[in-house]
Amino acid sequence: MVNKYVDLPSVKFFMNNVQELESVLSKKRFADHNLESVDMFIDSVKQFADRELFPYFKEMDENPAHYKDGKIHVHQQVGKMMKEGGEMGLIAAPFDYEDGGLQLPLLVHTAANYILDAANNHLPGYSGLTTGAAELIIEFASNELKEKYTPKMLTGEWGGTMCLTEPQAGSSLSDIVTKASPCDGGYYKISGQKIFISGGDHQYAENIVHLLLARIEGAPAGTKGISLFVVPKMRLDENGNLEPNDVTTVADFEKMGQKGYCTTHLGFGDEENCRGYLVGEENKGLHYMFLMMNGARIAVGRAGSAIASGAYYASLEYANERPQGRKLSSDGKKDLKEKQSLIIEHPDVRRMLMLQKAMVEGSMNLIFKASKYFDLQHNSEDEEEKHKYHTLLEMIIPVVKTYPSEAGIYSINNGLQVLGGYGFCSDFILQQYYRDIRICTIYEGTTGIQSQDLLGRKMMLNNGEGAKLLMEEIKKTIDEASQDNDLKEWATSLDKKLEETQKILFHLIPFASKGDYEKFLADASIFMEFFSLVLIGWSWLEIGVVSKRAIITGDKSFDTAFFESKLDALEYFYAYELPKTSGLAEVMLHPSSVTIKTDKKTIS
Amino acid sequence: MVNKYVDLPSVKFFMNNVQELESVLSKKRFADHNLESVDMFIDSVKQFADRELFPYFKEMDENPAHYKDGKIHVHQQVGKMMKEGGEMGLIAAPFDYEDGGLQLPLLVHTAANYILDAANNHLPGYSGLTTGAAELIIEFASNELKEKYTPKMLTGEWGGTMCLTEPQAGSSLSDIVTKASPCDGGYYKISGQKIFISGGDHQYAENIVHLLLARIEGAPAGTKGISLFVVPKMRLDENGNLEPNDVTTVADFEKMGQKGYCTTHLGFGDEENCRGYLVGEENKGLHYMFLMMNGARIAVGRAGSAIASGAYYASLEYANERPQGRKLSSDGKKDLKEKQSLIIEHPDVRRMLMLQKAMVEGSMNLIFKASKYFDLQHNSEDEEEKHKYHTLLEMIIPVVKTYPSEAGIYSINNGLQVLGGYGFCSDFILQQYYRDIRICTIYEGTTGIQSQDLLGRKMMLNNGEGAKLLMEEIKKTIDEASQDNDLKEWATSLDKKLEETQKILFHLIPFASKGDYEKFLADASIFMEFFSLVLIGWSWLEIGVVSKRAIITGDKSFDTAFFESKLDALEYFYAYELPKTSGLAEVMLHPSSVTIKTDKKTIS
Repeated sequence: MVNKYVDLPSVKFFMNNVQELESVLSKKRFADHNLESVDMFIDSVKQFADRELFPYFKEMDENPAHYKDGKIHVHQQVGKMMKEGGEMGLIAAPFDYEDGGLQLPLLVHTAANYILDAANNHLPGYSGLTTGAAELIIEFASNELKEKYTPKMLTGEWGGTMCLTEPQAGSSLSDIVTKASPCDGGYYKISGQKIFISGGDHQYAENIVHLLLARIEGAPAGTKGISLFVVPKMRLDENGNLEPNDVTTVADFEKMGQKGYCTTHLGFGDEENCRGYLVGEENKGLHYMFLMMNGARIAVGRAGSAIASGAYYASLEYANERPQGRKLSSDGKKDLKEKQSLIIEHPDVRRMLMLQKAMVEGSMNLIFKASKYFDLQHNSEDEEEKHKYHTLLEMIIPVVKTYPSEAGIYSINNGLQVLGGYGFCSDFILQQYYRDIRICTIYEGTTGIQSQDLLGRKMMLNNGEGAKLLMEEIKKTIDEASQDNDLKEWATSLDKKLEETQKILFHLIPFASKGDYEKFLADASIFMEFFSLVLIGWSWLEIGVVSKRAIITGDKSFDTAFFESKLDALEYFYAYELPKTSGLAEVMLHPSSVTIKTDKKTIS
Repeated sequence: MVNKYVDLPSVKFFMNNVQELESVLSKKRFADHNLESVDMFIDSVKQFADRELFPYFKEMDENPAHYKDGKIHVHQQVGKMMKEGGEMGLIAAPFDYEDGGLQLPLLVHTAANYILDAANNHLPGYSGLTTGAAELIIEFASNELKEKYTPKMLTGEWGGTMCLTEPQAGSSLSDIVTKASPCDGGYYKISGQKIFISGGDHQYAENIVHLLLARIEGAPAGTKGISLFVVPKMRLDENGNLEPNDVTTVADFEKMGQKGYCTTHLGFGDEENCRGYLVGEENKGLHYMFLMMNGARIAVGRAGSAIASGAYYASLEYANERPQGRKLSSDGKKDLKEKQSLIIEHPDVRRMLMLQKAMVEGSMNLIFKASKYFDLQHNSEDEEEKHKYHTLLEMIIPVVKTYPSEAGIYSINNGLQVLGGYGFCSDFILQQYYRDIRICTIYEGTTGIQSQDLLGRKMMLNNGEGAKLLMEEIKKTIDEASQDNDLKEWATSLDKKLEETQKILFHLIPFASKGDYEKFLADASIFMEFFSLVLIGWSWLEIGVVSKRAIITGDKSFDTAFFESKLDALEYFYAYELPKTSGLAEVMLHPSSVTIKTDKKTIS
């Protein structure tokens, strides 16, 4: 019997009722699935997580992945995750039948991986990156490469990675220098160093297939000269036998958290014998990679929310069991004859718990919504609808990646505080969640980069058409909520926040028009914080509409208390979180330019 | 040559110029000291910290204090801190000459310990608690106890601790059960368990003197029945020889951070042979302990700010050295022919650095102010002045403890983000600061407890007289700043925030008057967040007034760029941080009671 780390009914409620899985399943590609079969799949994932992930969560922190004798050694559960998870279809789920997949919607895949991340965030990265790498091959590479490399990836026998970052370039991909020299025989010689490669090496994969960005000799400078290669650790010779491909594991990065998920430094071509196979066309590498980026960013947001979910239930359990202090009576004193209260009875503890619940569930629903948009983008038959959902996904993706990560840190910080001194102690699990989640605001583009994307690109998308479309979607929820007496107040609040968003944009966009991009984007991170609260407010309003409707219609799929607790969390979010936008709006509307002063002495 | 962890000029500027150390030194008790002698003392502390603290900071994290064979083993620098630090007067500084002290103001002691905390926060607790324990003995115990136990504490040969917390009681001291039974011979038999005892045992102290709270048999229930005892690990027999006193070290708590500072579980009287010596009168233990509490809370705030200072300079150093990306040109694109920018040139990085600077320095100055109030409270000859400064200290102390701790977490979180992926890696120091500081919001009363104290007690102190006095002090700074054209705008902002504070209090206090204390205090933590920003706003305005005056008068004690950087940080705080109060005010003025619903189902 495990402790709770995720609320399965909430996962199902957001997937089935709020995001209306059925509307996705009605698409032709998903004809073989229905609500019952998905339900069984999700239940089996939960059982797998209970059995193979959650019990090893602490152990993987205490026995980190490590480098020894040229190899990375990881916990045995990495093998279980890849092989048993592979057999269950956890890697193959999103692919077509003909490629060995299950043709499941991303919405279902996201829900399944949410459970895995909440159970033990050190593991799903191994399978997730393998899915991502296989996707790039299946989507853009030749049939030959696909047939050679992907079948064993989908079963989990082989791993997959993304090799982007280099020591001298960091997030700035225009500066990568890994070299690819064309050779006879249809391959390129690869030489270079890649760092921060998650799942880059371990003893449970017979082979690891790296999807690597490199520059072909003579290619244009910057991002327009980057190509994508399949660079396996072991390449297949003419007879289909594996032979070493001159990929060296140089080191493993020791980290503050997520210690069971190895982060490696790889060397390619130290002995000039590393072969890379071009994916698609030359110089289009970054383009291909970025077509996969929305999926990757959904996955990071999902991890952030899920880690915060694990932490929430750990602090809730403590609050429900720990007696301490007493309630104040009407003279402001404590009656010592009363027995101690459980700490969950103290309003300040309740506030910290509701804060966690509001952030975890509000972001879970938004992440599921992004996954649904993804499914509708890729599976609608109507081009206009495809465009619509693609645009909506593009608009919300920076927030989908960022809010769960940033608010997740804040949420777990509160969760740790619920335990007082014990929260800081290694015997309790909160401190691990606190350390683990800290990477999420950095993975796949830091919060700073996401914020520049949100304000600098997405808000300007197609001359503001994207922003308009998103606002219209939000308005639909506001209109629905306005019909309900209990929700009307919140609908009005959110509507005001939409107006405030426009006011801020009208204030900022002229800087861009005048060519002052530095000023335009200087407070992009503040805009991110602001707009995240707006989108999570929308997420909660949507949850509120569906919950209220369920109560009114006497829906028995969940009990009434379940729906009521959602309305309470909605109220919490609107009473305690959404108002924070007011201060953030003030910041953005203020004329200060102190952060773009060039005088070095300012900061010392 | 060490890297930078604290800005010594800023420490001196806040101590000498902003808090006007001279006004404190003019008090009779400090007649032997002057600005020059203090300056030399501070410089020698900095040299000591450079040599004996900072170089071991990472090592102490990697080699934690640990329990083995009934003993706690700590890093060798604990011995250096106690003995060399003891010789330098770091333990004895605040005491009278006749007790072996240096008669230095707390303001100077705080500045010195700020430097030590910034250099290596794992060490100053050992000396600091020894000072605290000796203070209790010197202030309230018999001459016999004082003569027997304090001399070796002040030299650092013996350590000292505070033993309050028990497993079943946590922060709720009314529920402690450690027993004291009176015996012939003028002592009490002690039996009980104490947990979370910092510095409770280690191999570098010949003896450790515990100041312990216990309940004398038959004492009244609750906090009114708690007495204070000196319980040495080794007691002195009639001949002045040390003999074991039946104090057992049960375990050391393993923690997420501050691993070099041991946190012990102690057992007293397992063999019914543990003697405690009553301090002062029976049942007044908590009263004595709480008279020391302001000093202890200043020390925690000091540590929070100082740890954030170390982190700030670590991320600043990185930002000044790391090239990545390029500035945007007027078409919003990057020119690849340009060489990479240093990341400190990106506005978002500058924002994160200024945020750190504003929090670190704004809180340092407030902590120094609290220390000055303490000095003036204890050393003024005029009773009215004593009362005034005591009241002012009481008013600000919850913020002095809490803001540096809470904002310190936030500040270091941003500091870590400056490094991107490297911030998460153990090779870089940011992750350690991030872990270490997390305890500060828990030590000496959690943020929840401080917030209840701020709103529930301090704001109501003497029917609001305390709040009025504090507001008047703030108004003085506002009036001064209003005279200056550059500062006027900020003065007006702060004035509005004072009005807003009153509006919030007028909204909340009626709940208390009606006996609804639960509602009154439910959002105390939000009030803390709000009022902290007001007080740090005050702190910055004060810094601004002094800096501006220095620029105008051509003060050469620091260079002009130094003063200007203070004005920039002031602007940052007013443009980016103070506006957050608006949202917090909305939260408190909103009628929601969702956090005090008693229905258990709300949170699930």
